Amino acid sequence: MKNSVNKFLSLYNSEKAKVEKVLAISLRKRNPESLYKPGEYIIAGGGKRLRPLLVLLSAMAVSDKKIKPYYASAAVELLHNFTLVHDDIMDNADIRRGRPTLHKMYSLDTAILVGDSLLSVAYEYLLKDCNGNAKEILKAFTQGLVEVCEGQSMDKDFELKQKVSIEEYLLMIKKKTAAMAEMCCKIGAYLGGGTEVEVKALSKFGKNIGIAFQIQDDLLDISADEKEFGKIVGGDLMEGKKTYLFLKALTKAKGEDKKLLEKVTGRKGIKQNQIKKYKLLYQKLGVMEDSRDEIINYTKKALFSLKILKNEDDREMFTWLANSLIERNK
Amino acid sequence: MKNSVNKFLSLYNSEKAKVEKVLAISLRKRNPESLYKPGEYIIAGGGKRLRPLLVLLSAMAVSDKKIKPYYASAAVELLHNFTLVHDDIMDNADIRRGRPTLHKMYSLDTAILVGDSLLSVAYEYLLKDCNGNAKEILKAFTQGLVEVCEGQSMDKDFELKQKVSIEEYLLMIKKKTAAMAEMCCKIGAYLGGGTEVEVKALSKFGKNIGIAFQIQDDLLDISADEKEFGKIVGGDLMEGKKTYLFLKALTKAKGEDKKLLEKVTGRKGIKQNQIKKYKLLYQKLGVMEDSRDEIINYTKKALFSLKILKNEDDREMFTWLANSLIERNK
Repeated sequence: MKNSVNKFLSLYNSEKAKVEKVLAISLRKRNPESLYKPGEYIIAGGGKRLRPLLVLLSAMAVSDKKIKPYYASAAVELLHNFTLVHDDIMDNADIRRGRPTLHKMYSLDTAILVGDSLLSVAYEYLLKDCNGNAKEILKAFTQGLVEVCEGQSMDKDFELKQKVSIEEYLLMIKKKTAAMAEMCCKIGAYLGGGTEVEVKALSKFGKNIGIAFQIQDDLLDISADEKEFGKIVGGDLMEGKKTYLFLKALTKAKGEDKKLLEKVTGRKGIKQNQIKKYKLLYQKLGVMEDSRDEIINYTKKALFSLKILKNEDDREMFTWLANSLIERNK
Repeated sequence: MKNSVNKFLSLYNSEKAKVEKVLAISLRKRNPESLYKPGEYIIAGGGKRLRPLLVLLSAMAVSDKKIKPYYASAAVELLHNFTLVHDDIMDNADIRRGRPTLHKMYSLDTAILVGDSLLSVAYEYLLKDCNGNAKEILKAFTQGLVEVCEGQSMDKDFELKQKVSIEEYLLMIKKKTAAMAEMCCKIGAYLGGGTEVEVKALSKFGKNIGIAFQIQDDLLDISADEKEFGKIVGGDLMEGKKTYLFLKALTKAKGEDKKLLEKVTGRKGIKQNQIKKYKLLYQKLGVMEDSRDEIINYTKKALFSLKILKNEDDREMFTWLANSLIERNK
């Protein structure tokens, strides 16, 4: 297994390097510079490039590794960065990937327009890899875009809403996070020439791994090691965000515990020196274990749908990727 | 001719009414309301719906009136409204079509996200009308989007630039305005099943009529009748905008006249009580006539390219449309 892990990690790294190259040229030598230089700034910020990898691995899995749609994989990363740039404005975020956010580095106007432009180049790049089945691929990509806007709007609504159910939360992350992962796998499978069964299976994998990924994000926020995490642990509580753990805790807490939790939403966040108290409450209520269980459930669901893949090596690669995601510490 | 004009006007009105219906349902019954209600607000603001008409007329011209792609025509209007919503933020505009702009009516965050969402539904609607040649149509639409972002970025650059040449100005309006009209005609022609010759001819018509339309916009700003215009005449001078007339005046003026013009850019605009003085200067320099000549030139170019259309009735319809555009008073 150790050898396979090395093999998968090296495949991930070598494919990631190729995606980086395509991304790097996607905005280069374009005019006006006022538009494309800030675009290059945000793309150069790096990241895990998970979404492009989902496109590539899906295409490879259904085509015996013959088809590697690098343009499409760059397209999903450009789309992802479009959402980051606009979301950072809405969240009034100062830092992204350790550097000033685009609207802080340049201006609000630039960030709005550069976000739009990243999306325009995303479609341009996606089209470079489309041939016979352009319509299906563009439909899937557009559906992902529609949902990511809806999910972001729901997320902003939740900030003002007093009560949010776990079902509503799950619908929101399905749209805001999982729809994008689902789309990546789906277009990868289409581009690789997959059968309808393969397209469905990979889409389902993407969707469920996307949900697991987001709950893991919520869990890490309170349970990560601050040195490895690179951000303040407990930041979601400080912002009063209605995460999976928080909503789960609300459904389980009673009496004084419930009142303590309700203070978070009532006051729109807590102070940093209160985080420890809330972490202890989360531990008492067992919501870390609950979220861990959910993460494992969704990951199992994701991997189960891949049983139809012919090649064991592909299934193992996806298993490695899924496990890396849920075992990550940042 | 009087009868034909009535016929064309009634065709325009009846097709516009059908486009309105498709637009009205495009955002209805969608969730979350926080996203789609503000979208409906901006779409309900109305407008000439010229871009959808260009799509429809182009499709009809190449298909003996058999093909009317209403979804695609709604798509271009949704795309246009996406640009309006984001541009209004960047221009810090308060009023659009006589009503508060989206970011004034709701919030900045809502306006950013609703703009994005209008674009997502635009692609969704365009795809509804695409069949065999989805790739060409999506490419043309995306190219329009890429250019409109570039044009807007150039336009914002011009606000800070001391010197802008007429060539630079023309490149900017080609991207910001004409590329969109070109795209509408192109996708209409593709959707109608036009030949390559027809697609090229209609694209050229769209591009040139788009340039004429924008210079006419610049001309109207200083020469319109305030009651009909609905806005302050001379608003571009007050904002210090580098319009066709202003840049033309700069190339022709000498001595004191030139200094007077340079004050507009130096001070980033003039006061309302100075507009009359500048209008007299424009008259002395003859830049109203110059822009009128350019408008007529580009309109002639536009109509000349349509000589290849088989049906005289179609050519007359486009001629009527082009003339209505350059004779409009608002």
